[in-house]
Amino acid sequence: MDSAALRQEAKSGACPDAYRAVRALSVALAAPLSDADATIQSMPDASPAKWHLAHSAWFFETFVLRDHVAGYRLFDAEWPFLFNSYYEAEGARHPRAERGLLSRPSLEEVLAYRAHVDAAMERVLDRPELAGLIALGLAHEQQHQELLLTDIKHALSCNPLGPAYAPAAPRFRQGGDGWREHPGGIALVGHRGGGFAFDNEGPAHRVLLEPFALAERLVTNREWDAFIADGGYATPALWLFDGWAWVRQHGVAAPLYWREGEHFTLAGWQARDPAAPVAHISYYEAEAFAAWAGCRLPTEFEWETLAAGEDPAAGNQLDVCAAVAPTGTAALFGDCWQWTRSAYLPYPRYRPAAGAVGEYNGKFMNGQYVLKGASCATPRGHSRAGYRNFFYPHQRWQFTGLRLARDL
Amino acid sequence: MDSAALRQEAKSGACPDAYRAVRALSVALAAPLSDADATIQSMPDASPAKWHLAHSAWFFETFVLRDHVAGYRLFDAEWPFLFNSYYEAEGARHPRAERGLLSRPSLEEVLAYRAHVDAAMERVLDRPELAGLIALGLAHEQQHQELLLTDIKHALSCNPLGPAYAPAAPRFRQGGDGWREHPGGIALVGHRGGGFAFDNEGPAHRVLLEPFALAERLVTNREWDAFIADGGYATPALWLFDGWAWVRQHGVAAPLYWREGEHFTLAGWQARDPAAPVAHISYYEAEAFAAWAGCRLPTEFEWETLAAGEDPAAGNQLDVCAAVAPTGTAALFGDCWQWTRSAYLPYPRYRPAAGAVGEYNGKFMNGQYVLKGASCATPRGHSRAGYRNFFYPHQRWQFTGLRLARDL
Amino acid sequence: MDSAALRQEAKSGACPDAYRAVRALSVALAAPLSDADATIQSMPDASPAKWHLAHSAWFFETFVLRDHVAGYRLFDAEWPFLFNSYYEAEGARHPRAERGLLSRPSLEEVLAYRAHVDAAMERVLDRPELAGLIALGLAHEQQHQELLLTDIKHALSCNPLGPAYAPAAPRFRQGGDGWREHPGGIALVGHRGGGFAFDNEGPAHRVLLEPFALAERLVTNREWDAFIADGGYATPALWLFDGWAWVRQHGVAAPLYWREGEHFTLAGWQARDPAAPVAHISYYEAEAFAAWAGCRLPTEFEWETLAAGEDPAAGNQLDVCAAVAPTGTAALFGDCWQWTRSAYLPYPRYRPAAGAVGEYNGKFMNGQYVLKGASCATPRGHSRAGYRNFFYPHQRWQFTGLRLARDL
Amino acid sequence: MDSAALRQEAKSGACPDAYRAVRALSVALAAPLSDADATIQSMPDASPAKWHLAHSAWFFETFVLRDHVAGYRLFDAEWPFLFNSYYEAEGARHPRAERGLLSRPSLEEVLAYRAHVDAAMERVLDRPELAGLIALGLAHEQQHQELLLTDIKHALSCNPLGPAYAPAAPRFRQGGDGWREHPGGIALVGHRGGGFAFDNEGPAHRVLLEPFALAERLVTNREWDAFIADGGYATPALWLFDGWAWVRQHGVAAPLYWREGEHFTLAGWQARDPAAPVAHISYYEAEAFAAWAGCRLPTEFEWETLAAGEDPAAGNQLDVCAAVAPTGTAALFGDCWQWTRSAYLPYPRYRPAAGAVGEYNGKFMNGQYVLKGASCATPRGHSRAGYRNFFYPHQRWQFTGLRLARDL
Repeated sequence: MDSAALRQEAKSGACPDAYRAVRALSVALAAPLSDADATIQSMPDASPAKWHLAHSAWFFETFVLRDHVAGYRLFDAEWPFLFNSYYEAEGARHPRAERGLLSRPSLEEVLAYRAHVDAAMERVLDRPELAGLIALGLAHEQQHQELLLTDIKHALSCNPLGPAYAPAAPRFRQGGDGWREHPGGIALVGHRGGGFAFDNEGPAHRVLLEPFALAERLVTNREWDAFIADGGYATPALWLFDGWAWVRQHGVAAPLYWREGEHFTLAGWQARDPAAPVAHISYYEAEAFAAWAGCRLPTEFEWETLAAGEDPAAGNQLDVCAAVAPTGTAALFGDCWQWTRSAYLPYPRYRPAAGAVGEYNGKFMNGQYVLKGASCATPRGHSRAGYRNFFYPHQRWQFTGLRLARDL
Repeated sequence: MDSAALRQEAKSGACPDAYRAVRALSVALAAPLSDADATIQSMPDASPAKWHLAHSAWFFETFVLRDHVAGYRLFDAEWPFLFNSYYEAEGARHPRAERGLLSRPSLEEVLAYRAHVDAAMERVLDRPELAGLIALGLAHEQQHQELLLTDIKHALSCNPLGPAYAPAAPRFRQGGDGWREHPGGIALVGHRGGGFAFDNEGPAHRVLLEPFALAERLVTNREWDAFIADGGYATPALWLFDGWAWVRQHGVAAPLYWREGEHFTLAGWQARDPAAPVAHISYYEAEAFAAWAGCRLPTEFEWETLAAGEDPAAGNQLDVCAAVAPTGTAALFGDCWQWTRSAYLPYPRYRPAAGAVGEYNGKFMNGQYVLKGASCATPRGHSRAGYRNFFYPHQRWQFTGLRLARDL
Repeated sequence: MDSAALRQEAKSGACPDAYRAVRALSVALAAPLSDADATIQSMPDASPAKWHLAHSAWFFETFVLRDHVAGYRLFDAEWPFLFNSYYEAEGARHPRAERGLLSRPSLEEVLAYRAHVDAAMERVLDRPELAGLIALGLAHEQQHQELLLTDIKHALSCNPLGPAYAPAAPRFRQGGDGWREHPGGIALVGHRGGGFAFDNEGPAHRVLLEPFALAERLVTNREWDAFIADGGYATPALWLFDGWAWVRQHGVAAPLYWREGEHFTLAGWQARDPAAPVAHISYYEAEAFAAWAGCRLPTEFEWETLAAGEDPAAGNQLDVCAAVAPTGTAALFGDCWQWTRSAYLPYPRYRPAAGAVGEYNGKFMNGQYVLKGASCATPRGHSRAGYRNFFYPHQRWQFTGLRLARDL
Repeated sequence: MDSAALRQEAKSGACPDAYRAVRALSVALAAPLSDADATIQSMPDASPAKWHLAHSAWFFETFVLRDHVAGYRLFDAEWPFLFNSYYEAEGARHPRAERGLLSRPSLEEVLAYRAHVDAAMERVLDRPELAGLIALGLAHEQQHQELLLTDIKHALSCNPLGPAYAPAAPRFRQGGDGWREHPGGIALVGHRGGGFAFDNEGPAHRVLLEPFALAERLVTNREWDAFIADGGYATPALWLFDGWAWVRQHGVAAPLYWREGEHFTLAGWQARDPAAPVAHISYYEAEAFAAWAGCRLPTEFEWETLAAGEDPAAGNQLDVCAAVAPTGTAALFGDCWQWTRSAYLPYPRYRPAAGAVGEYNGKFMNGQYVLKGASCATPRGHSRAGYRNFFYPHQRWQFTGLRLARDL
């Protein structure tokens, strides 16, 4: 059983090997980073790499070890204040925007913290009553693996020296130019049956779909260049009111990380591949591009319905520490998270879980949009058809892209 | 045919009497205001009364007279720059946040502008090819009548002297405490058939509803007092993440305009009626209250489906210049606009109209929520079951209230 | 005795005729303004004309009538909250930045307030123990007369229609191009002997001067055009660090109110007279210009020493309601307040007066620079050689100009 | 010749031993810091320790080696962009507020940069035509040594773990409670004669002093506690207008780094010594305290005149890497920089030097106040009687304290 397969297993519960594989990948992702690299925070939306490593350990320490394992002693009684993210039920915490001021504990000390937690976890990995919490913790950790990569990419991009996180990955080409059609009707969406899912993916429920089609591939850098050349960023009629205000206020004229023919990648500044999927676009940009192209964004339910028969572990997703980048793929998953026009709202009869973990998803259901699929930085096995990623419409430091839709 | 009936007529087209009645109400609403009252702007979201009067004249002057009436001469060639609101296709314009600096033109000059436009309009009110644009202009003007009232209420509330716009209106009582149930199923929503509707109300389309119930009346001041007494504003678990941040940042502890047992009204500071509907609450507050009450907000489609057989011109709505206020009613419409949990997004196959008027609705479909019904400040005859009002989740200077929903 | 002479008298105490003349000029200055004009506030630094009229009445009502006249009844018990400016000892007050929201009381009501105060003052104008306070109140009112003019100029300049306050005044020419030299030595500066002075003008004390010269006239618009043409606003080496940051942040490229060959005046947009003194420049601009010209700004003591034998009531100063503007004069006083390089700091052994009026000057002695002379908007008779006007280095909505100095 | 003596020598020119001693102290000060510690920046006013180390090397590399040493090759052609501070003549540079994002180059690489520069400098230390520039570079580096200590103190204080930079230093007691009197008269101030001085310390010139007295010791923590207990931070009458606004906006209620009976030091959180000088106070606080105490701040010239006969290398100043802190001393220098009431302005006939180094001091002469003396973090030998330190009135992260003055 190879490590990607093991991480895939994580979604279905507390398999000890899955635990070890997921936890080991986090440590592997930190290997290229110095203590200083792992400390800096380039904007309030992002967090230091070291913080991600510690926070994902805190999650297991708090919700599994502290709450359910008699006699467990905290690694350090002062650290929960530092590494609680946003759980009000867990009390006061270090301000999010000041995570980059924590030169202490060091990266080495954080790795020792992880080892301490792992040693304690080893003794409870087979306790069935903890399987759900452990699966949640592993899914949580995988989310932070992706954030670690996108956050360090942003941080390195702010350095005029343009340092690389890892060597560049080879380039690929993506699939065909056609459309995948769907006749509409009543579809069943949302999580049902086996395997792990976040609470925001349920309850399963029926939705009514009109006939539609989705593009076979993501919008490419070449197409985006054409949008720019046609004055896309200077034509208010293409934009939402809030989007146009955002363009004007920030002087936006291209996707994040673009400069002339290059873009910043985890391998430093590189020439852009015209055939690769465009990445690092905001919802506003995706919307404007779709309007320019005479198409629209899909709804989350259209996407999910088409994806129902696909392999969510296919495509360009994260397996090992590398300079991941969108390269193109025939798969529906991978390369970039795909903006939908669906506001991130609760499903009918949705109820958050009780206790602190109930703060995981529900309280964010405002002002954000659902993204579907998976990106090159998503640990393979983490996502699925019903997965609901979500970001605010101006955010674009994730690997976010666009698959066009149209009415039939 | 009385004046309220005439204004109701406005929704179905360019009846000359409807034109005159709607236009006359705007002027009547300004009667209690001095030139200075009509000039001030208390926040960027609000506009001066004088500006509303001039802008609604500009709308007819621009989209009817200038574009469709040969030989029409602008009242003043410099004024369109002042009174264009947000139409990019109409060019540059005075900054929204500086509307309150326009002591000139005076209120008297603005009324002369309106008379000039009305005189020109009289000659074209019966031209059938203009009926649609005129109906749009009248619906537009009615929206600004409501804004004029809510904006002047806000402006007067900022004055420590607490001046009144008009004498207080008598108090009423609202309907029963029960629930109106609906079995769910496939419903047809959105505008179809006769009468005027905004473009955002269509196309008509089918939706799937699960069984639900709506409260027979709006949440009252008494219930809101209980929410406060129970620590509603101090319990983060009740709030959306963004809502809790808003509460903390602004020190929110009650609906807008509340102080001790009083609230600010268009009749100045008044004792609160415990049995009247609570008003001036944000979406965040509505959401938190619903969570506290063990209920939820309705979707826009649940509300519309229940309202299909109701009289949209019933209930506490605006007929004449007065200190309007929510008083309670058995009707589904009136008193307060009712927050729904539906994000303000385009209906399937929605396309904005061509030209500048296409900017009316579509470009605002981001980050806002749909409100249904009508308020005490909505001109009677303006709203309907399919009407989609929309505001950002933190906004609460409109007469916004809450009707609870629950799953069956 | 004409009215300018009477106002001059105001500086030496509580002459009843002086009281009446000063108070009447304030009312005269408001004559061209509508209620709406008198209500608006175009920035936090400025105040509505109506507010100036009411605040200067409040000053007499509070510090003379309320404190010293038995049986005086406040015109309105709620108004002191509105019209206290910054006197902490007088308690809470309406926020400065929200003065423009006070559509009530109306201009007419404010004028009635002034008449009420004047009637009560008439009965005490000859009480010798009040002479000092009354002289202070009149000097205070004259300061607000100048502010009323500069504030309404700013407010009208924000209106795209460019309305005029009054008809344009005729143009004059200013004096010679030479220098007035001074040999230096020990000089006595500060207020001594008869007549009114503010507390910040004393105590009189000795200072040591090195030989210096002051220009016979103010820097002109023509010279400023040359500064601009030579890249003055694009050459960081000419600017203070804070000044350069201000230029960059606000995109400053000319004095306030300039556009192409015109500038905004109290008579609306007018062609600039190249020979007139430049006005509406910040300290930063004055400093940069002086560096470019190979000169420097004078100190306050150099200026005062040269001015000791001059007539402070000569030159282009305010006599009646008119569109005052700098026109050029051979006098040392008038046209524009003149920036000095002297920080506004206390003189040796300075002590603020006891009580609320002690807040008049002393607490502002930080971060500002002294300006000397008088402007075209300064009521004639108000200023004197020892007068210390003061503003922050970025402020330029007053009639501020520049007289060059150099070392000998 | 011991190392403190050598560093003292630095002020009089380019003695090679002085160069080595000063440069070695910078490296020694970094010894307790990890790469991450040396990378973080806790506010825009502060800089990372690594940045200080690199910037002071850049200063020598640029103004000595690049400009005056044929054949010198830059260590790295991209680094000047990173390590130029504010020299416009040296072109564009990395934004000040983003210095904390530079995880690369590492601390180790920066130390290699310093060694590279030192090796090249060794070959030119005896060139007499470079002596002035080298002396300037060493004085510059000493300023950054003090900033490195105060900046890392601030950064560590933001960490909830309260890490220590070094072990606590022993406590001392300061001098007597009396006053040192001066009869006033004409004094000669400013730099004259031998030894290094910054351009802002000249030209020497005469000033007129009135009789005055300075306290023999600095204000203590005990006295500050009394000020707080007497409502000092809640009494607006004690404060400058700008100071009171600062108190209200930031909720200031004690010196920086105070919490209950403790304060944060370079040795972590420690109990406060009541007899030690109070430190980390703003000009606003110093001014308010002096008003409360019935005294005033000295002028820079009073201080300098009294200090003329004192040993500027006496007292509690920096010799080696340690947790320096104000402890009390009988010397006029040391413990804390002392706020004066003198605005930081140019001396008569002051002219900045030509070229980029002319930007060193002159362009900052606005809005700041002069501080005299030296602090516990000032390298011994760096300061002198004529030295003019300067900060904005709200800044207090330096070791800033207060010596009272009064008129005689």
